[in-house]
Amino acid sequence: MANFKGHALPGSFFLIVGLWWSVKYPFKYIHQKGKSSHQHHNYPRVEIIEAAVRTLFSIIGILAEQFVPDGPHLHLYSEDHWVKLMNWQHSTMYLFFAASGIADMLTYLVTYIPLGVDRLVMAVAAFTEGFLFYYHVHNRPPLDQHIHLLLLFTVFGGALIIFLEVIIRDNIVLELFRTSLAIQQGTWFWQIGFVLFPPFGTPEWDQKDHDNIMFITMCFCWHYLVALSIVFINYSLVYWFMNRLKRPRDGEIIGIQKLKSGHIYQTALLNGSDEE
Amino acid sequence: MANFKGHALPGSFFLIVGLWWSVKYPFKYIHQKGKSSHQHHNYPRVEIIEAAVRTLFSIIGILAEQFVPDGPHLHLYSEDHWVKLMNWQHSTMYLFFAASGIADMLTYLVTYIPLGVDRLVMAVAAFTEGFLFYYHVHNRPPLDQHIHLLLLFTVFGGALIIFLEVIIRDNIVLELFRTSLAIQQGTWFWQIGFVLFPPFGTPEWDQKDHDNIMFITMCFCWHYLVALSIVFINYSLVYWFMNRLKRPRDGEIIGIQKLKSGHIYQTALLNGSDEE
Amino acid sequence: MANFKGHALPGSFFLIVGLWWSVKYPFKYIHQKGKSSHQHHNYPRVEIIEAAVRTLFSIIGILAEQFVPDGPHLHLYSEDHWVKLMNWQHSTMYLFFAASGIADMLTYLVTYIPLGVDRLVMAVAAFTEGFLFYYHVHNRPPLDQHIHLLLLFTVFGGALIIFLEVIIRDNIVLELFRTSLAIQQGTWFWQIGFVLFPPFGTPEWDQKDHDNIMFITMCFCWHYLVALSIVFINYSLVYWFMNRLKRPRDGEIIGIQKLKSGHIYQTALLNGSDEE
Amino acid sequence: MANFKGHALPGSFFLIVGLWWSVKYPFKYIHQKGKSSHQHHNYPRVEIIEAAVRTLFSIIGILAEQFVPDGPHLHLYSEDHWVKLMNWQHSTMYLFFAASGIADMLTYLVTYIPLGVDRLVMAVAAFTEGFLFYYHVHNRPPLDQHIHLLLLFTVFGGALIIFLEVIIRDNIVLELFRTSLAIQQGTWFWQIGFVLFPPFGTPEWDQKDHDNIMFITMCFCWHYLVALSIVFINYSLVYWFMNRLKRPRDGEIIGIQKLKSGHIYQTALLNGSDEE
Repeated sequence: MANFKGHALPGSFFLIVGLWWSVKYPFKYIHQKGKSSHQHHNYPRVEIIEAAVRTLFSIIGILAEQFVPDGPHLHLYSEDHWVKLMNWQHSTMYLFFAASGIADMLTYLVTYIPLGVDRLVMAVAAFTEGFLFYYHVHNRPPLDQHIHLLLLFTVFGGALIIFLEVIIRDNIVLELFRTSLAIQQGTWFWQIGFVLFPPFGTPEWDQKDHDNIMFITMCFCWHYLVALSIVFINYSLVYWFMNRLKRPRDGEIIGIQKLKSGHIYQTALLNGSDEE
Repeated sequence: MANFKGHALPGSFFLIVGLWWSVKYPFKYIHQKGKSSHQHHNYPRVEIIEAAVRTLFSIIGILAEQFVPDGPHLHLYSEDHWVKLMNWQHSTMYLFFAASGIADMLTYLVTYIPLGVDRLVMAVAAFTEGFLFYYHVHNRPPLDQHIHLLLLFTVFGGALIIFLEVIIRDNIVLELFRTSLAIQQGTWFWQIGFVLFPPFGTPEWDQKDHDNIMFITMCFCWHYLVALSIVFINYSLVYWFMNRLKRPRDGEIIGIQKLKSGHIYQTALLNGSDEE
Repeated sequence: MANFKGHALPGSFFLIVGLWWSVKYPFKYIHQKGKSSHQHHNYPRVEIIEAAVRTLFSIIGILAEQFVPDGPHLHLYSEDHWVKLMNWQHSTMYLFFAASGIADMLTYLVTYIPLGVDRLVMAVAAFTEGFLFYYHVHNRPPLDQHIHLLLLFTVFGGALIIFLEVIIRDNIVLELFRTSLAIQQGTWFWQIGFVLFPPFGTPEWDQKDHDNIMFITMCFCWHYLVALSIVFINYSLVYWFMNRLKRPRDGEIIGIQKLKSGHIYQTALLNGSDEE
Repeated sequence: MANFKGHALPGSFFLIVGLWWSVKYPFKYIHQKGKSSHQHHNYPRVEIIEAAVRTLFSIIGILAEQFVPDGPHLHLYSEDHWVKLMNWQHSTMYLFFAASGIADMLTYLVTYIPLGVDRLVMAVAAFTEGFLFYYHVHNRPPLDQHIHLLLLFTVFGGALIIFLEVIIRDNIVLELFRTSLAIQQGTWFWQIGFVLFPPFGTPEWDQKDHDNIMFITMCFCWHYLVALSIVFINYSLVYWFMNRLKRPRDGEIIGIQKLKSGHIYQTALLNGSDEE
């Protein structure tokens, strides 16, 4: 949907998922630090609910793309030409995120599916989004093309990180990075909507002005800095909130464990277990 | 062989190998989960048979490319010009897959060849396929070029995954990913055949229509989703089949081991052995 | 600031940081080799001071870009056009390095922030610098464009290494590599200044001469060799200095530990702990 | 030196180094397999001699490029123009390989230099070779350009593998891969010489014929297959030779250790030490 709503919808989805992650991962990390056991019985349930919500978002996206008034209404080919391929491509993007959500649910619900499949399908979904976007924006004005292609840095960067998580699972830094990319993608979709389809009657942007392109490039970086700050603030809020609920000595344990963890970080990969 | 059969042949090879892998790797993974020992005496034999079949497929491919009526019949250069370079390039692709099959056999048959050489040569074979394809499709109509170049994502992605398996061997998620890429490559070769050389008298595709290119790009993604679903279905069938053969308590053991394995996943790389 | 000072300023910043690292990392590495414990109580303090200085440098850079006589003075948009976008882009680059400095300080000051966040934000800062540079040099003379784009190899290479350090922390070889790239970036900024804005009345370079471009390409390599030599010399000086301060037997311990460390290098990743 | 000798010289250097590696690494690997200890006192000496020979080769290369009759004789700039930049660029490539040789010697001679620095500098040397080649072949006939650019796959692939060895040292598969790339680079330099400067009065190649380019692309793959075969043959010869010298029971130990090593390969990275 090449209009404001067509960008606000996915933007909101990514923003909601990103903000949720910016609470979930800090909570999980700080919680595990304070415990000797890594197992927590509520995590699978939380993961399944999250995956279900993500699947629901994706299905809403598919339906919106298909059944808006000028959508294809599930017609793909009629009378010698393809019907509304733009909407079909968007539907395909949502479809892969639906597949990712389903894969997440299956990974946590079905015991015989190996961990890591969830991350793999999510990486594929992110890659597919970027892949389709890349071939999507031919023959458009320079600014339109540029503002969409900038998204590829976020999307392919995200795909790479998520794929890395297949191998290195539960690394808090990678999870926070992924979170920040999700938030930035959300805010950037909104930005695209505001630039290409000014909603409040503001004047249109000159789509061929080189200065506009230069500003948008820089603006993209600012969005990431904002995303990073949101992740930091939410991380701190979660820590502060969890500390208030717990007894004081848990805080000390975290401090001690962090030193230990730093030591582990330094020695694990290179020195093996000889110094433990 | 620039005709329907020339695409159906490699398509079938990749499809057969991919489908076989979608049974083999789940079987191996689930079998190992239920045992305390990682050794199984039939594996090397199965691997050698598979490698022999793959080598046979490749030799069939080479012979087909060389000795079809309009093939080069092993003539490379005659009367000041190269003979049928297209067929020679296809032969070269098959040749590398033959080399990969031989390397697999040697790795399992000859005790002094280190594990990992099999994956390395397979990665090289996949890379070579993509490398030759890339320089192969110059000066063709846009759709022809595009539909072949899409294959490069599958092929180079596969080469990367297989190379990663040199270092991280026997990771079920990487193996399933490789499997899904092999299946998609198989179905995509068939798709290319149907699009460029419609076999049942269906009308030809307009090779310059941008909408056709956009549809094919999206269709490529759908193929991958189908490949992923096939892998999932076969994985589940293998699990269900193995569970019927075994005693019920094995199922429980798998569940427990999965929890343990998840724990290991989380802690192995980063925390070393200090928490075991 | 497209003049000599505008390149000498960041050049000096990178050079100072690089030279400092070429002393800090050898010191830390040799010190840890001579001790059985990996913990040293002065390191966090040193890291925090370094991060504060880097933040200060970045703020100086932002202020210089904004408040030079022909700078934007914090005006971004006025009278229907963007104000001094070049300076704004430079400010944005400095801003990300400021964020990296702040992230470093927080990682060492605040116990609940996980190690690795510092490296992540630094990698993002380096990536952003390259990202903005890439879109920055359109429509310039060939030599100007080329001499700036060469920097991308250093910057993106650096971003990759720093990101790798999120996962493989405290690897002395990666740290020395990063150090050499920082020094080269510093000297290259000075080189750009001397080539594009000859400061001592020397004749201007012909910006379209292909030979100049070829020389500059080669010169870029020489700079890296010089940077590598500086790292080696400082490493040796630190070793010699530390050895003079210590008792002789520490030196022997280092020798023995190196053998052991080499052994560990060989076996850690592949053989796990079975041979220790 | 754009003539036959200018390609035969580096070709011979790479070929000699590659062939030597194809003997050294199998010897080291098989030797270590048969012993419980990973330490061998002759290795450092062998490594130092190898590094010295590589440094010598590089110095010969530099001198040849500088002091051939039409060389620059160390003059870089005279009378307002750069002198023989081609030769200077070749000299720079050799210079980096000299630096790599020196870094190797220092790593083995000087106890305080960390292992891995040797690989890092070698990776930098390979990267620099590719980097200079890339900017080197502008404005040449298509075949000339293509035949040189194909080398980049070998060179950048090599740089990547060698860099990987900074982190994963003494992995026999990576070492054999590097060896095969070195041999292929050597044979390809000879191939370039034969194609661009036919030495025995054979007719010149048409440098604009697309078929020639297609053949050369395929020929490049064949060279790699030959290189791989040479590595395999030398590996087997070394094994056969070492087995003749040793007592029979060593052979059995290798077989048993291989099984064990395969097991370790499977479990090390993912399962940590819980199953040892």
